[in-house]
Amino acid sequence: MRVKVSRKAHFNAAHRIFNKNWDDKRNEDTFGKCNGINYHGHNYELIVSVTGEIDPETGYVIDIGLLKNIIRDHVEIELDHKNLNLDVLYFKNVIPSAENISIYIYNKIKPLLNNNFDLEIILYETPRNFVTYNGN
Amino acid sequence: MRVKVSRKAHFNAAHRIFNKNWDDKRNEDTFGKCNGINYHGHNYELIVSVTGEIDPETGYVIDIGLLKNIIRDHVEIELDHKNLNLDVLYFKNVIPSAENISIYIYNKIKPLLNNNFDLEIILYETPRNFVTYNGN
Amino acid sequence: MRVKVSRKAHFNAAHRIFNKNWDDKRNEDTFGKCNGINYHGHNYELIVSVTGEIDPETGYVIDIGLLKNIIRDHVEIELDHKNLNLDVLYFKNVIPSAENISIYIYNKIKPLLNNNFDLEIILYETPRNFVTYNGN
Amino acid sequence: MRVKVSRKAHFNAAHRIFNKNWDDKRNEDTFGKCNGINYHGHNYELIVSVTGEIDPETGYVIDIGLLKNIIRDHVEIELDHKNLNLDVLYFKNVIPSAENISIYIYNKIKPLLNNNFDLEIILYETPRNFVTYNGN
Amino acid sequence: MRVKVSRKAHFNAAHRIFNKNWDDKRNEDTFGKCNGINYHGHNYELIVSVTGEIDPETGYVIDIGLLKNIIRDHVEIELDHKNLNLDVLYFKNVIPSAENISIYIYNKIKPLLNNNFDLEIILYETPRNFVTYNGN
Amino acid sequence: MRVKVSRKAHFNAAHRIFNKNWDDKRNEDTFGKCNGINYHGHNYELIVSVTGEIDPETGYVIDIGLLKNIIRDHVEIELDHKNLNLDVLYFKNVIPSAENISIYIYNKIKPLLNNNFDLEIILYETPRNFVTYNGN
Repeated sequence: MRVKVSRKAHFNAAHRIFNKNWDDKRNEDTFGKCNGINYHGHNYELIVSVTGEIDPETGYVIDIGLLKNIIRDHVEIELDHKNLNLDVLYFKNVIPSAENISIYIYNKIKPLLNNNFDLEIILYETPRNFVTYNGN
Repeated sequence: MRVKVSRKAHFNAAHRIFNKNWDDKRNEDTFGKCNGINYHGHNYELIVSVTGEIDPETGYVIDIGLLKNIIRDHVEIELDHKNLNLDVLYFKNVIPSAENISIYIYNKIKPLLNNNFDLEIILYETPRNFVTYNGN
Repeated sequence: MRVKVSRKAHFNAAHRIFNKNWDDKRNEDTFGKCNGINYHGHNYELIVSVTGEIDPETGYVIDIGLLKNIIRDHVEIELDHKNLNLDVLYFKNVIPSAENISIYIYNKIKPLLNNNFDLEIILYETPRNFVTYNGN
Repeated sequence: MRVKVSRKAHFNAAHRIFNKNWDDKRNEDTFGKCNGINYHGHNYELIVSVTGEIDPETGYVIDIGLLKNIIRDHVEIELDHKNLNLDVLYFKNVIPSAENISIYIYNKIKPLLNNNFDLEIILYETPRNFVTYNGN
Repeated sequence: MRVKVSRKAHFNAAHRIFNKNWDDKRNEDTFGKCNGINYHGHNYELIVSVTGEIDPETGYVIDIGLLKNIIRDHVEIELDHKNLNLDVLYFKNVIPSAENISIYIYNKIKPLLNNNFDLEIILYETPRNFVTYNGN
Repeated sequence: MRVKVSRKAHFNAAHRIFNKNWDDKRNEDTFGKCNGINYHGHNYELIVSVTGEIDPETGYVIDIGLLKNIIRDHVEIELDHKNLNLDVLYFKNVIPSAENISIYIYNKIKPLLNNNFDLEIILYETPRNFVTYNGN
């Protein structure tokens, strides 16, 4: 009896999508307005889901307060109100697309969880654009 | 060609999270404000999803009006405007966490459906906290 | 140039709607399932709006972080994860309807604000039921 | 490392649910108010999700602008502000239930995508009723 | 101490926007795809708000269950799953724009309420388009 | 019979909140993480509302397609995927707070409308923080 427990969180950040190995024209042709040189930004909505067995003593798979704190300490504090390209070391060499941000968050949270837990990350870049990553 | 058909429903209930076999201090340390002795409550949002083959005569997997009625008759009438700990027999001995409520709802609805249908329960305890259970 | 600044907040609480001066039958006839003796509960969504002049030095009417803290310290800490009838003194003698809760919150926040500010409280008891109070 | 990329879109349409091989009474008994002879309508919310490998040069599985254009050109232009029964050839002989519309959209988009991509269609007929189809 | 009490409701309907006194070209030029001859449709979301004094005996301005029933009996039953142009007498000679539908609903509900109550109608034609009417 | 017609729109932008006449310490003390030197960003949700008489020939106060185009041409093209501080002349000397952005948008749209129309701007900086400005 495995249950998936999900927690929604939130952070605001600026970013710019471009490949630093490409010239300006190729970046402009490929990424359009997402390539704006002065950055733009998003309210990222994040859903972190942990799947595992229920502990019969607590009725919880994982204490959602604990999950909330993991997200705050390991994701929000680093990413909220930041410029992803300039302020986050990982994105010096990785394009901060929603896809890559979701993998980054997955890789930060996974080692903090019990090995028996599955993890899924859903990241909304806008209310109409979002990505899902579960380590597969 | 299997399609998943989902219906959103709603009920309001009070509950308290605690383990009756533990002393007050352990309950307080483990469950914090969810352990409040006078209960608190939630607007539970429920998504019931049934997966099966489309009936070519109707274009439906299941008549969503029928699914709506199943949820009303077997979930809402029992749980809406109730105190889960005090008014629902099942939760005399099971902690009414979102995880356990989702399993309870799953087990009430599953026997009412055609055997070929898969069932999934998503239960929002708050807009930011929710669980998913599909019988696996 | 007055601008209205709004902050959404959230608390979960249990309550029961009944008039203690009435007998059971009249309460049942008037309040129906809201009169359930063991309480039920809601995820209250709260929107607190402050209207005033923009401070040209900051671009703010009111620092929204300050408004967030006022709501946390004077509303959420008292009401979240509580039983409104049993845990909140004011509702010993006042029915904890959404209308009365909105007035209670208005009266707690108004004295904390600059006299030149107008205040409006919107309180969602469920996603479909909500009230608005602005002191008039 | 496969990531699912999702795009929300929207179209408004009229439809009527009935089986043209049945008599009026059977249609009325089976489909109720969805069988109204003069049609009714919905704001369909559509989520199209594409799952595949991230292109390390762009950080994208698929350019979401490209996905947006595919939905506009192959779904919205044909279905938005239309009567599904009367204006869309496919639904001359197929009942325009949410289930069948989702399959229709799947079959229109799938051939336009790279073979390595998985596709999933979620279609909201109302905010409380929706279906999911992924080709299985 | 006047409080506004709001109830959200819902109906699905088909309509077509055109002026029957105009020729086809003028209707096409003015109303574009909203003029589609076979109708299109919407999930209308409706918010009905009643403003008045709180009854100290009940804590209510108006019993929200009563308001829910008024909307069901006087709006939903007539408009839900209907073609506004063909099935609703009033729209034989009045264009069923969101503006005119909101006035129609206002005029149906206002006489049913206590004279001291103010009434406001908000009608969402789509999640992005909505109108507000309060009788002024 | 005046009706308010509202249209929701959207733009993504980066900004930084600081007073250029202040030293770093005072900006840090006043604006906290909103003062981050490399900018952060938001998905701004915008609701533009126009109030006026219904034209009996069309049933419209204003063609919502026209309103959509005004927002696109005069707001979205200038602000979407931009850095408000660096890319928008007006914010060289005005702090790009939500309050000031709403006034900027009001002043751009007001002269484009019929004099008899009232205008209201609601701007969501995040789903929990928003402002309202109507020219008073």
